Amino acid sequence: MKLQAAIDRVSLKQATQIAHQLDGIVDIIELGTSIIKDYGLETLKAQDFKLTKSELLLDLKTNDEGKYEFERGYQTSADILTVMGGSDESTIQQTYAVAQAKNKKMLIDLIETSDKKINQLTDYYQNAIFGLHHSKDSTEAYDAVASIEQFVKKHPTIKNIAVAGGIDLDQAQKIAQQGLANTIIVGGKIVGATDPVKAAQKFMEVIK
Amino acid sequence: MKLQAAIDRVSLKQATQIAHQLDGIVDIIELGTSIIKDYGLETLKAQDFKLTKSELLLDLKTNDEGKYEFERGYQTSADILTVMGGSDESTIQQTYAVAQAKNKKMLIDLIETSDKKINQLTDYYQNAIFGLHHSKDSTEAYDAVASIEQFVKKHPTIKNIAVAGGIDLDQAQKIAQQGLANTIIVGGKIVGATDPVKAAQKFMEVIK
Repeated sequence: MKLQAAIDRVSLKQATQIAHQLDGIVDIIELGTSIIKDYGLETLKAQDFKLTKSELLLDLKTNDEGKYEFERGYQTSADILTVMGGSDESTIQQTYAVAQAKNKKMLIDLIETSDKKINQLTDYYQNAIFGLHHSKDSTEAYDAVASIEQFVKKHPTIKNIAVAGGIDLDQAQKIAQQGLANTIIVGGKIVGATDPVKAAQKFMEVIK
Repeated sequence: MKLQAAIDRVSLKQATQIAHQLDGIVDIIELGTSIIKDYGLETLKAQDFKLTKSELLLDLKTNDEGKYEFERGYQTSADILTVMGGSDESTIQQTYAVAQAKNKKMLIDLIETSDKKINQLTDYYQNAIFGLHHSKDSTEAYDAVASIEQFVKKHPTIKNIAVAGGIDLDQAQKIAQQGLANTIIVGGKIVGATDPVKAAQKFMEVIK
């Protein structure tokens, strides 16, 4: 199981520092949508993060103009880009084609995507990672373990699941034991910790 | 009826030039999602567009973190920001609250939003502009006049409609005569024209 640490709502300087601290500690380092919309891909291309061990994910959350956004996104050193499951299917087709052609990865963000649409997506985009998560803005309670179980029952052909949403050490351990998800995504509980490296190491321990 | 000119997929320098050329010629100048994701809100804040007559719309296409994105977005001189209709309703609540508190406008982008969700949205967010359009990536034919008519039949309480999707002069005139939409959004046919000002003036003539 992989650990993805999500960096959000900090300055570019802080994001760069944290990314370098966590390089090699976690499997995937995510620069969240807030970093992209605040600073832009041109800046992220110019100030390359140059990770040496971890993969880099940019949470582009593409809704439209799939080919353009993914071509621009992969001009940075990103290994993985994200597209919204709720976008028009032509958009998802375009982003997938760009990712496959460049031998890169794509995550489909399933926020508010209907079950019917998810089934279409899991049939066609077998190499995609499916991002299961709660909107950060939602105030409803979220049980990640139960959500994963329910999700896999509904969509049994799915191969690669990433799960996010306020996951703490206890939940991370339970998700690892459950053995259905491939990646857990942790934000504030690593990046907002006094010592992000130590926090990340604790998560790595409980999921191995 | 208002005319909104959308600027997309050009350099920041070109975007700035075109925006200033069109200031006062069209009602609303849109900086598209491509400009935001390429250059970032920090850059757009620092290099303020300072429009004197037209309103400025930033096509943020917020999917999550509604409060954060809208607060950042309105730190530029934007009058209108956009949120995805397909996002979690808590996100739309947050963006609407920020827009109302700042006495600014919000457009809800209805790409791939279900009819049921649209009816909920039109009930609650009466001051929002509802953006009716086709995904740019879709290859299906799109008849804007027929789509507007159908849309208003399904959602009769809607007050403020903006319509986009490959609209040419002929369609613009028909939409104006139809009298149901409040704004038409034109991209390439103005911004991609040899003389964007002349092209915009022609659109203004046929919709008045």
